Amino acid sequence: MKVEGKQYRTVWLEGPAVRMINQHLIPHRFEIADLPDHLHTARAIRDMVVRGAGAIGATAGYGMAQVALEAPVGGDWRGFLEQGAQTLEATRPTAQNLFYAVRRVLAAAQACGSLGEARRAAVAEAQAIADEDASWCQAIGQHGAELIPDGARVLTHCNAGWLAFVDWGSALAPIYVAHRAGKRVFVYADETRPRSQGATLTAWELQGEGVPYAIIADNAAGHLMQRGQIDLVIVGSDRIAANGDVANKIGTYEKALCAQAHGIPFYVAAPTSTIDMACPSGDQIPIEERDQDEVLYASGRDDQGRLTRVRLAPDGAHARNPAFDVTPHALVEGIITQKGLIAPDRLAELF
Amino acid sequence: MKVEGKQYRTVWLEGPAVRMINQHLIPHRFEIADLPDHLHTARAIRDMVVRGAGAIGATAGYGMAQVALEAPVGGDWRGFLEQGAQTLEATRPTAQNLFYAVRRVLAAAQACGSLGEARRAAVAEAQAIADEDASWCQAIGQHGAELIPDGARVLTHCNAGWLAFVDWGSALAPIYVAHRAGKRVFVYADETRPRSQGATLTAWELQGEGVPYAIIADNAAGHLMQRGQIDLVIVGSDRIAANGDVANKIGTYEKALCAQAHGIPFYVAAPTSTIDMACPSGDQIPIEERDQDEVLYASGRDDQGRLTRVRLAPDGAHARNPAFDVTPHALVEGIITQKGLIAPDRLAELF
Repeated sequence: MKVEGKQYRTVWLEGPAVRMINQHLIPHRFEIADLPDHLHTARAIRDMVVRGAGAIGATAGYGMAQVALEAPVGGDWRGFLEQGAQTLEATRPTAQNLFYAVRRVLAAAQACGSLGEARRAAVAEAQAIADEDASWCQAIGQHGAELIPDGARVLTHCNAGWLAFVDWGSALAPIYVAHRAGKRVFVYADETRPRSQGATLTAWELQGEGVPYAIIADNAAGHLMQRGQIDLVIVGSDRIAANGDVANKIGTYEKALCAQAHGIPFYVAAPTSTIDMACPSGDQIPIEERDQDEVLYASGRDDQGRLTRVRLAPDGAHARNPAFDVTPHALVEGIITQKGLIAPDRLAELF
Repeated sequence: MKVEGKQYRTVWLEGPAVRMINQHLIPHRFEIADLPDHLHTARAIRDMVVRGAGAIGATAGYGMAQVALEAPVGGDWRGFLEQGAQTLEATRPTAQNLFYAVRRVLAAAQACGSLGEARRAAVAEAQAIADEDASWCQAIGQHGAELIPDGARVLTHCNAGWLAFVDWGSALAPIYVAHRAGKRVFVYADETRPRSQGATLTAWELQGEGVPYAIIADNAAGHLMQRGQIDLVIVGSDRIAANGDVANKIGTYEKALCAQAHGIPFYVAAPTSTIDMACPSGDQIPIEERDQDEVLYASGRDDQGRLTRVRLAPDGAHARNPAFDVTPHALVEGIITQKGLIAPDRLAELF
């Protein structure tokens, strides 16, 4: 997608370095982060300089390519690859795309007979993952746009836009395709505490594309549904279990319950790489519990333009901070993949 | 309740001045605001220096006492009283207690034959309202504590603690009574965006009373219920319609839907002054839509100890900011009043 007239992807490989849009600074500043080696890349995933299912996957794939490029000539390069994979996999526990990308690049490299070959194979495989992500998201946009009637008011949660992938996004891709096709679409963006990805990233993306929208507190969606002001919900996912249960940003489950209470269709948009057929159901998905400071503080731009945080809670306060939740498949109308819309109980047909 | 060892009420009359705990500064600073006349008092209600159903009611009652004290000797004091009532009533549209208190003090004053009499009657009536509020809340605490089993994990939303009333609170009073009686109670406090009354006021209150608690993002309650970590919900209310529909802070309705999905009892604690028998159902309750900046920013204490706000959203962003929602009576297990627990469809029996 374009930023100030120039075409960007969220993350890319440039020589031995991974480069990415620094998502910590959006929407207040637009800067490119430079990650010279796989340890920097792993830290960027862990610290959420990059976040979002597809973007994490592509970054981890590129990180594995860096591991191959850094592997010692004449040393135990296969062991180095395995260790690098473990480093990258230890960064975030929930995102299926991370494991998918690391294992895929690792397998491509390990299948080679020499380190030189392994390096070329790792870079090519990482690039293929990123390119697939972009083209899959565009296809999700085309399939999903058919579900958006002219004049629709769409609720989304967190950021499953192009910043969360390599390009286009999952939940926002159908909105972009519908909007570019001339349909009138209005988006309600949940701000998505505690990290406010809706108020920051989704709002920034929608503004960049000229899609009319309003940010709402996470508390407001139920009320708007009750008053007939939301027509459908589209969210992304970090991992989908084989039975169609959907792990996504904390709060997604509450929105799904609200949608059910009002008969509003609740769609999940995700490439098939998000589906974990080895995971039978949602209660097997590990839920990351993050630092309580995310809840005790809010981050943004102060009146002097500095990026800073303010403490909301009293000194000595405690918080719980589960980062994801699981929406049972029964609440999901359908999953929008690059192959089309599919019922959550029929995922096996995709593979 | 006590603050640093000293007994306080949320608001009181001292000579011609209304004095109140400045709730803008909690939990970062403890200061008493001084409101020399009814126009200052009206502004304090509008600007939410004081907030919460009972505290607004008591403040408005004291504000009407100020109106009487300020009424012109030898002039049209009855007209002045009526105009003062209108000024106070124009501050916040949703809180039933505001209208209840203003009308009650106004009626007491208008019933008098002279301004001197009217002044004495207004002050006495305002004091009676505040005293009733405190004793009613204590009774709510006693009735509500019976519903809290030993070891219970209670979810609450926003702040319906003693700061929201004159003393004790509504939703938190049962927790205080149970805790003081030696029951083990753990509270999950929704942070309650956009104004964060849970993360600020409720956390400050619970800490002051030594009740163990954790703040959670508003998004997290559904997940915790799904994982069996919440046993009951107690919230307050700004207005209860005759059919038992409950207006309360935005997000309450979402929590009620979550509780229903998990078979968790959802209680509303409120004095009978919150019940508006003239309002047949929740869809007749006006919902205040507040300034979008509340959603676009977050307020707190910066790393230099200053109270300030940070902008979350991009420049030019839009937000919707409904401040309340309506929970249909079917989702409410019972309403805890000073007279005891009552089913939401039997409110008429209270009057």
